[in-house]
Amino acid sequence: MADQFAQTRRDDRPAGTPVIRWQEPPEGPVVVLLDQTRLPAEEVELVCTDAPALVEAIQSLAVRGAPLLGIAGAYGVALAAARGFDVEDAARALENARPTAVNLSVGVRRALAAYQAALARTGDPRQAAPAALAAARQLHQEDARASARMAEHGLALLDELLPGGSHRILTHCNTGSLVSGGAGTAFAVALAAHRAGRLRRLWVDETRPLLQGARLTAYEAARNGLAYTLLTDNAAGSLFVAGEVDAVLVGADRIAADGSVANKVGSYPLAVLARYHHVPFVVVAPVTTADPDTPDGASIEIEQRPGHEVTELMAPQAPVTVAGGGLPVAPLGTQAYNPAFDVTPPELVTAIVTEEGVVSPVTAAGLAELCARSRASTGGQRP
Amino acid sequence: MADQFAQTRRDDRPAGTPVIRWQEPPEGPVVVLLDQTRLPAEEVELVCTDAPALVEAIQSLAVRGAPLLGIAGAYGVALAAARGFDVEDAARALENARPTAVNLSVGVRRALAAYQAALARTGDPRQAAPAALAAARQLHQEDARASARMAEHGLALLDELLPGGSHRILTHCNTGSLVSGGAGTAFAVALAAHRAGRLRRLWVDETRPLLQGARLTAYEAARNGLAYTLLTDNAAGSLFVAGEVDAVLVGADRIAADGSVANKVGSYPLAVLARYHHVPFVVVAPVTTADPDTPDGASIEIEQRPGHEVTELMAPQAPVTVAGGGLPVAPLGTQAYNPAFDVTPPELVTAIVTEEGVVSPVTAAGLAELCARSRASTGGQRP
Repeated sequence: MADQFAQTRRDDRPAGTPVIRWQEPPEGPVVVLLDQTRLPAEEVELVCTDAPALVEAIQSLAVRGAPLLGIAGAYGVALAAARGFDVEDAARALENARPTAVNLSVGVRRALAAYQAALARTGDPRQAAPAALAAARQLHQEDARASARMAEHGLALLDELLPGGSHRILTHCNTGSLVSGGAGTAFAVALAAHRAGRLRRLWVDETRPLLQGARLTAYEAARNGLAYTLLTDNAAGSLFVAGEVDAVLVGADRIAADGSVANKVGSYPLAVLARYHHVPFVVVAPVTTADPDTPDGASIEIEQRPGHEVTELMAPQAPVTVAGGGLPVAPLGTQAYNPAFDVTPPELVTAIVTEEGVVSPVTAAGLAELCARSRASTGGQRP
Repeated sequence: MADQFAQTRRDDRPAGTPVIRWQEPPEGPVVVLLDQTRLPAEEVELVCTDAPALVEAIQSLAVRGAPLLGIAGAYGVALAAARGFDVEDAARALENARPTAVNLSVGVRRALAAYQAALARTGDPRQAAPAALAAARQLHQEDARASARMAEHGLALLDELLPGGSHRILTHCNTGSLVSGGAGTAFAVALAAHRAGRLRRLWVDETRPLLQGARLTAYEAARNGLAYTLLTDNAAGSLFVAGEVDAVLVGADRIAADGSVANKVGSYPLAVLARYHHVPFVVVAPVTTADPDTPDGASIEIEQRPGHEVTELMAPQAPVTVAGGGLPVAPLGTQAYNPAFDVTPPELVTAIVTEEGVVSPVTAAGLAELCARSRASTGGQRP
């Protein structure tokens, strides 16, 4: 089916389009997403009326970022339930839409478990559907609260690691309010430092191939009034040499049981540079990103994306000239290696900041303890 | 003045547009360049009728690459002399067109010295002009011969460093026949390995912001039938982790007396990654790239280029939509940090390959000895 359509920004809306929302127009419930592929050129919302439409939005990166993928997945299950589609089918399709971010599967399973429990209790799918939606809404709210706590823990860590209170932070990809129910992960820490008057500069890696740094992080930094500077991923090395980076802050898509961190491709080279220059490399992610079922970095499935993301330039408002949708730069027929993520081993990660606290040094035991604490505090809700 | 115009590819020309040539049509001598900003979309030649036009072509990167800049600079002096302009003025403007590549200044000074010596001898500028042209032509031919010798020495070094004879080479930026009178520097080594049946794969970094890898190296690799794969600069780390890189080969724009290597931004991060993964990092450059007057890396002037190269996407055939000439990706008003080069310290360079032989380990003494040998073999022609 994959029934989705675009609608442009309404004028009566409060400042800032929500990245995801549930709406119930007379025609039936829909999940409305801010289409992140069009930012910062325009704010367009994508209306998904069924789970296949949401799968398409996830795969095209209209909706992206580990925590937000979890929320989107949960709403997707709720949508299938509310519309009377096969909920388990929808959950399976959503869970498999992208392989690397564990949060997607966590969110999907949580809404599905709530639905199945209600169905077992009531025997009536129509009565079970609201349970899936309630689970999605709860996850959404929890994520917002987790953002706030990560920002708090992260800022305290920065102040501890970097006495002087004038931080120059390098970040990669986009980890702000566009990926979260709240202010995000790594970006939320930088934003907290800014609001506390302790951010000297946010260095924003453009993050090829899809330029989430240039398009999205720069957009969020500008909207929030941060002192920020954009750079090519190549130029990060020069910043380290010049002593212009006090810490690197990134998000995560999956953290294996041994503390290996899968995150946007280009994170690992930054971790190696940070180590070479004795600069802290800090990962900020909700506890749900830690996946006890993935033993180590080598076990993390890395999504390989189409080569045209590299061989063609995709500007948000570029005219579509070829099949891939972008402007060709490389000669026709050029093959590209295009992994979406890379894996940073725990020995290169100074600390992992979560809403439940900080793990540092990063060890399997430290991570397991944190996850256990989290399960205890949420009453074992994590599937 | 800056008098230049474009002319499209003539059909009667042998395969492969020359990257630079001297022509003497009835209207007077001109320097004709292959406009590298338009590659690989189209082969357009840029005709320069005076030195300011050539300065403009150098600054817009229509002509680029350290060795070729030297040749272009020498032809520029010859052009000013042949057209009766102020030769010293022209030489000064050409020499200052870009600050980092020392070869530009070496080429300019060599043609200027030849002109001045002839002028002193004959007292007649019109008789001195051919001396400048002869010097430019000689430099052009010498560079072609140097390419061949670098390729030979480089391949021997690869075979020594990497027994097994099936090399997977990672390269950055463009260092092939587009930057040289011959087959180039680092690319010439990869090409020699390919022709000897010993190149398993050439990994081509796209090289943001101007995509010389995606546009130019991929173009040269495709034309020469190499097995090559394009990747974002971010993805190089994943290749190292996967054990897919046997050696990194790059060119150089200036080598300081201590062995520090200025090259296209992004080279230094590769050197750090290579060291972390115990992979050789090899610099290939003609002896003229070594600059005894620059004591160390910190003394190398690094060109800072305009921010719009980062905040806007520039595809060779993209429609011009804004002042910078590209498609905006970052929010309006975004500032960018855009150094064109970075500096790799000698301790991260496994070897420097020149036409006179290989320096390894890279030390000030080893480099000085090589330069002395070169001066002896060329009869001290280097200015």
